[in-house]
Order: sequence, then structure tokens, then C-alpha cells
Amino acid sequence: MIMSRSEAPRSEDADAAATGGLVDSLLGGLPAEAVLTDPDVTASYANDMASFCPAGTPAVVVLPRTTEQVQHVMRTATALRVPVVPQGARTGLSGAANASDGCIVLSLTKMDRILEINPVDRIAVVEPGVINAALSRAVGEHGLYYPPDPSSWEMCTIGGNIGTASGGLCCVKYGVTAEYVLGLDVVLADGRLMSTGRRTAKGVAGYDLTRLFVGSEGSLGIVVRAVLGLRPKPPEQLVLAAEFASAAAACDAVCRIMEGGHVPSLLELMDRTTVEAVNDMAQMGLPESTEALLLAAFDTTAPAADLAAVGALCEAAGATQVVPADDAAESELLLQARRLSLTALEAVKGVTMIDDVCVPRSRLAEMLEGVDRIAGKYQLTIGVVAHAGDGNTHPTVCFDPADPDESRRARDSFDEIMALGLELGGTITGEHGVGVLKKEWLAREIGPVGMEMQRAVKQAFDPLDILNPGKLF
Amino acid sequence: MIMSRSEAPRSEDADAAATGGLVDSLLGGLPAEAVLTDPDVTASYANDMASFCPAGTPAVVVLPRTTEQVQHVMRTATALRVPVVPQGARTGLSGAANASDGCIVLSLTKMDRILEINPVDRIAVVEPGVINAALSRAVGEHGLYYPPDPSSWEMCTIGGNIGTASGGLCCVKYGVTAEYVLGLDVVLADGRLMSTGRRTAKGVAGYDLTRLFVGSEGSLGIVVRAVLGLRPKPPEQLVLAAEFASAAAACDAVCRIMEGGHVPSLLELMDRTTVEAVNDMAQMGLPESTEALLLAAFDTTAPAADLAAVGALCEAAGATQVVPADDAAESELLLQARRLSLTALEAVKGVTMIDDVCVPRSRLAEMLEGVDRIAGKYQLTIGVVAHAGDGNTHPTVCFDPADPDESRRARDSFDEIMALGLELGGTITGEHGVGVLKKEWLAREIGPVGMEMQRAVKQAFDPLDILNPGKLF
Repeated sequence: MIMSRSEAPRSEDADAAATGGLVDSLLGGLPAEAVLTDPDVTASYANDMASFCPAGTPAVVVLPRTTEQVQHVMRTATALRVPVVPQGARTGLSGAANASDGCIVLSLTKMDRILEINPVDRIAVVEPGVINAALSRAVGEHGLYYPPDPSSWEMCTIGGNIGTASGGLCCVKYGVTAEYVLGLDVVLADGRLMSTGRRTAKGVAGYDLTRLFVGSEGSLGIVVRAVLGLRPKPPEQLVLAAEFASAAAACDAVCRIMEGGHVPSLLELMDRTTVEAVNDMAQMGLPESTEALLLAAFDTTAPAADLAAVGALCEAAGATQVVPADDAAESELLLQARRLSLTALEAVKGVTMIDDVCVPRSRLAEMLEGVDRIAGKYQLTIGVVAHAGDGNTHPTVCFDPADPDESRRARDSFDEIMALGLELGGTITGEHGVGVLKKEWLAREIGPVGMEMQRAVKQAFDPLDILNPGKLF
Repeated sequence: MIMSRSEAPRSEDADAAATGGLVDSLLGGLPAEAVLTDPDVTASYANDMASFCPAGTPAVVVLPRTTEQVQHVMRTATALRVPVVPQGARTGLSGAANASDGCIVLSLTKMDRILEINPVDRIAVVEPGVINAALSRAVGEHGLYYPPDPSSWEMCTIGGNIGTASGGLCCVKYGVTAEYVLGLDVVLADGRLMSTGRRTAKGVAGYDLTRLFVGSEGSLGIVVRAVLGLRPKPPEQLVLAAEFASAAAACDAVCRIMEGGHVPSLLELMDRTTVEAVNDMAQMGLPESTEALLLAAFDTTAPAADLAAVGALCEAAGATQVVPADDAAESELLLQARRLSLTALEAVKGVTMIDDVCVPRSRLAEMLEGVDRIAGKYQLTIGVVAHAGDGNTHPTVCFDPADPDESRRARDSFDEIMALGLELGGTITGEHGVGVLKKEWLAREIGPVGMEMQRAVKQAFDPLDILNPGKLF
């Protein structure tokens, strides 16, 4: 969905004139090739990857390359009271990057330089458009590791990861994006530049505005530079697969593993629907008889011993088969199956709604049982993959968008899954964010007082409500 | 400095009448024994442990035991426009808990219940008055670990740790308090109760108000309940001591260790002044000839191998002697020396000012060299202990408060140390917070735009400015 630069129309395109003063003002501080007005082109920037999220028609798309250019965009937007929708690679799953009618789409994808990698201080300084995988590879060359690894990591940007507070497979050991953002340069709604945080390992000078921006979905300011914390690269991880005759038994294994004090680098669950979908798509020969497949990995100095201990716990929980990988190649094959899960579920009916309800891991079995009940009630195929070690489930509703009744049932089941998550003491969103998709649900989770204070914070940073309006609230 | 309960005067004390309507209003929702008005008693709540920080005279001290009582206090304060100063154990080092004239001191020390410890979900739910060490021991019985370990851990409270975003010796591997606070119940300025965050491993529903409260020094609301993340208890750590002929060589060793990808559970530095002070006080027999003593520890499954690797790096950096501990007892002895450092430095002249400037660890040598220069310039004894792995230094200025000239030089040197930290790309406070002590310096670190947004956040939560006014800003 990302336009390559050669396709970008020149601003002298006839359509540009129609947007009038806005485009002229933008061109006062941006080069012509950074201002896109061809409606066919700008329309291609309307959506992220979420289903069921309305999107408007942007007035213009801008592709700044410098902080000064972003400041010019925000000053223009403030002067003309035009809403601004910041975007990374638009791989998000909540509609947070969807355009609104008449907005400026502010794509940060051209600000994609890695400015510094420092192995002593274990930090990287980057622009927001850097691709997650590009950063991971670059720091890897210095023996370093940037853990957050959302499944879109080959496409998604660090700015987008910060905006949505992304998670991934690594979180069970290494935590989420928020834990790696040490400091930010942010362009505020009125175009002023603010620095938050630090480049030191620790720092507590004033309120933690850095963390406030992480997950704020572009609604408080535009991140133009980030100082990221890094870790030393861990040893290659070794993966174990365990089959279970019921999802409940697999969840019991998860609880035993975590209660036993183990620290896996990955602890993922695929239910039968997901296993079948992966086999159908990629002929990977996963065991179809299984009701739940658990993948556990360790990146310790003696992973075989850890896998043996965890394998024993899986067997104690009733695993019908436990297969530890012998080497990196076997491990990678098992991980490939997990990584293909969402694509494979998408192939079932053409479209999916991917939920990301996170529950206390002690309630994971109840969550899976409930999703199964909901799938039956609505006569839908709902596959569940889960970052099981975090209790973070991705119930993935498969449906045919050409079938209005099935689409309606899909939407209803999605809501019921969120309600179930809250009932179990969980959250409506473990890692995808609120965006448009879940904004009606935010108030149900955090209550009226929480909503009022959330809005007060928004008001403090964006009194004119021009930063990604209509998202979150 | 903490009053024991038996010493608390009854509210029928004659002095109570003098505070008039305020005390009557407080007694409308608090039992008599929770409202202290005897001036001798309330005066004992005026200060935390910071030097050079003015404190006012409280009108009243309240010791609520329930959330409802805290709500009553805040409703009363709002109705009567009386400032409220929240307090834990008052072990802070920035004056953040100092009373202001006519304020209500709101001591949370009686809300000291551990409500839940859950080994599967790896969380604890606690009230704010729980002592850090009490929590550590309680979770330890479940095989769990609450890492944040400020040096006052036997006295300080979790609520105080949250308010000041405390660090400690463990941070180089395990991070600071902020990383362990998952969710909060907070009583707002007007007495309403708000819940933030979650009890799940992950969650991104709305702005991260939880992190905003961590380190906010009681200026945004009163924390009455916290959900804390826990880790599995690591193996006992093994400590290595290395002597250096210069502070620069010790700092070089720190850089080599971190660049080498090691993950010590502790990496502490004591300079010659500190080593001498510890020997003088405790006759520990530390090597007095040393210019800098580095302590490194590993709590891995094979710590001896890690110590050997790190010992070799210390030798490469010029260590004159490297002594790995053979067992836990030897390790504990070395740690004792480090733990006594600040007390020992206090004994040098009677009083200390303890700074906590944090610099990128690659600049640590320049920081130590600069502090040495500043000590010479002002003719003062300044010992430096440092969480070296984090670049977090504690230059500790020793002075005699009865000597006005020395006191003035102490204060001036303290400022010059902060200026040096900023010059080196550091922060004025790595873990003690701003409070009263460093509030003039906050603006120098974060600039006018940052200050304006910090104030806007304060205004959003506390429009009447009754929550710990005069702190931070």
C-alpha cells in the first residue's frame, strides 16, 4: 500500500490547484515533490490495515524529510485549522492512521535515517520512518538487539511502533516498545519543537512525557526523532513445539511454565483452526490432529536444558507430543508456521478482523473457551493465535466481506470478544491500540473519570483538536 | 524520622481547635486517631532527608487507612483550597515530601497492606504504604522478585518509590520502578477515584497515565493502590571487586564491560574518598591505595564464568587487582561496603548533599574527572559512588553545616556538578527526582517548551494547584 517515490505525482499536477490555500501554504516550506495532491494518489493513503474502520478523503499528502518541514506542516495546519493524520507504513490494525475528510496526511516514511548507534551507551537515535527490520539489522551488526518485533516488522516503521506502542513475539521476555523509548523530539500541534526524556540509562527530570507519547496514536504531537534503548544480542533461540488435546491443557502448560519461574524468549499458542489454516496455505505438515500447539523458545546460554524443563511441564499438563528443535534451522521452521498464522487465517475467507485482547495469563484458558463459544454462537470461523506467555490473544475472525450477514456477525462477535476480555480482568487492546476500531470500547475499559483525564491530556497538547481527531475518543 | 503510632497524639489535643474548620472537616470522614494536630508532632513530619530544602509548617497531619478516607481528605482540601503534601517514609533526597505552610500532610504509611501476590500472573497488588523490603521478602516466599532497591529499601514505601520513580543497585540489569508499575488507583485532586493501566502483562488502551504518575512526586494525584509486575527470583549473585589506579581506568572498564555485551546484575563504582570513608567508619579493610573500586555482579546460572570474563576486561583496562568472590558470603561483604558508602560519607563532616546526575556511560570518566576538579576548586571533600553501569553518579558533597562559608561552597559545587552533567549530555536527576532541591534546574534541562507542556499536564490534573504545590516547578 505504500507509494514508491517514482509514482508520486508532481505538485504542479492540475488537481493541486483545487486544494487552494492549503497546498500553497504547504509549498511555502516543502519542496514540490513532498506535496501530493492527485486524488488517485492521495486516496491510496486513506487507510491502514484495519477492517471495518471508516476512512475519509485526504486533501493532501505531505512527505517531509526534515524536522523543519514537519514544523512547517504543523504551523500551516494550526493556522488554517486543518486536521493532520500522521502515518508510518500504515500496517496498523486499529484504523489509527486512517485519513479524515479534508485532512493533511503527514507521512513520516521519508524521514528514515538511522542517526546513531552507540554500543557503549546501548542506544540508537533514529528518525520515525526507519523500518523496524532495518533498525534490527543495523544494530545487529554492532552485536546489539532492538527487541520489539511486531509481525509487520519488515514493513512497519519505528514511528508507527511508537505511535501504537507495538508489541510482538519477544514481549514475554523483553517487553514492549514503550520500554525501549528513552527520549523523543516531538513537533507539537502549533509547530514548536519539544524534547522529552534522555539519552542516559536512567532519568526522572519532570513528568514522563516520553511514555505519554508512546501509544498516543499521533494525537498529541509528531515524533520526529527517537532515542531508543538497545540490549546486547542474545544467543540464537531454540524452539520447542508441544501438542495438546485441548486448548485448556495448553493454557495450563503456560501457567505451569510461568509459575515455575521460566523466562522463555517466546511462548506462543496456535489453536486448531490456525494450524489447519497454515497447513492449507503452506503445506507445512503441522500435526492436524492437535487442538492446540504451543511454541516455547529460550535464547539462554543452555537452551536445551530450558527446553527439557519446559517440555516436562508440558507433559505434566497433558501434552500429547513434545518436540524440541535440535538446531536453529528446525527452530526457524516452527517459527515460520507461527509467523504465517495471520496470513493463513486471512486466506480462509478473504478478510479477517484481528483482535488483540489481553487477559491475565491465569485466565487464558477461560478466554480461549469463551472465544470458541462465541464462534459457535455466531457460526463463524475464529482462529486464535496468542502471545500466550503474555495472555495476549489474537482471536481472528474470518469472514467474507461480500456476505452482509456474515460481516455483521463478524462485527458482533468482535465486540463480544472484547466484552469477554474485560470480564476476565483484561484489556481490550494488548498491542494494537484503540484507533477507530475500539474507541467505543475505551470508555468501557477505563471508565468516565479515566476518560475525562485522558481528554484533559489531549486538550493540554492539542487545544484545537487538529492532531488525528476522531481517533482514541 | 517516622513517628511510631503510639506516639501519635489524640485529636482531642487542645491544639486541634486552633486549626478550626479544616480539622473539623477532616474529622467528618476520618477517625480521631488519624488526624494529628499537636504542633510538636506535626512539625516532625515537615521534612524528607534532603539537605538545603526549605520546609513549612503543616496545619495538620492525616494518616488515612482506606481509599475512602483519602478521598475525604482530597474533597476537604479542594473545598477549603488547602494544599496537600503526600508522604511515604520521607526518605527522599530532593525535598519532594517537605511540608508547606498550612498544608495537610497526607501520610500514606498506614495503608500498608499487601493485597495480592500472584505467581502465575507475576504481579503483586499493594497499598502505597508497604515498605519496599517487606514486599521484596513477601514475594520472595513465592519465588518471585521485585527488583527496585533504593538504598533506603528497609524504610522507604512503594508509594514513595512510585512518587519519586526510584532506582537502586539493580537497575543496570532490571530497570527502575517505572518498569514495574502496571496499574494504579489514584485519588484525584477533587477526591474522585481513577484507575489507570492494567493487571495484564501488556496493554495499550488510551494514554499511559500510569507512567505519568510515576515520578510525579504527588503533584498529580494520590496513589492508593498499585499493581506491580514481578520477575522470577534470579540465582544468588556473585560479586567481583576490581581496583584501579585511576577513576578513568575504572570507567574504561565499565565501557568495555557494557560494550562487550555483558549484563551484570550490579556494576558499582566507589572512588578513593568513599573507600576511605567506609574504612574509617566500618574498618572493612578495603584497599586504601586504590583510586577507584569497581564492583560487578552476575546473578546468572554460571556467574563464575561471567566474573572471569569481566575480570579479564578489568585487567585489560588496567585494573591493579581483581578479586572475584568465591561465594555468597564474600559477595555480601563486598556489597556491604557499597551499601555503607553514603552513611560513611555523611560521617566525614556531619552532613552531605547527595547528587544523582546521570550521564551516558560513555561520558562517565569525564564526569568523575569534572567532579574531582570541582572538589578542588571549592576545597571540598566530594566522594563519588556511582551506579556505574547506568552512568548514574552520586557525587556526595561533605560539609559542616555550622560553617556558613563551607555550606555556601557546598551548594555552589552542587550546582556546578549539575551543570557538568548537562554539558555531558546527561540529566540532573537519574533517580532522586526534582522536588525542591532541583526545581530551578529542571527548566535548564528540558527547556521552555518542555516546561510549558509539563505545566499544562499539571494544570489538567490539578487546576487549583493544591497537590504538593511548589515542588517540581
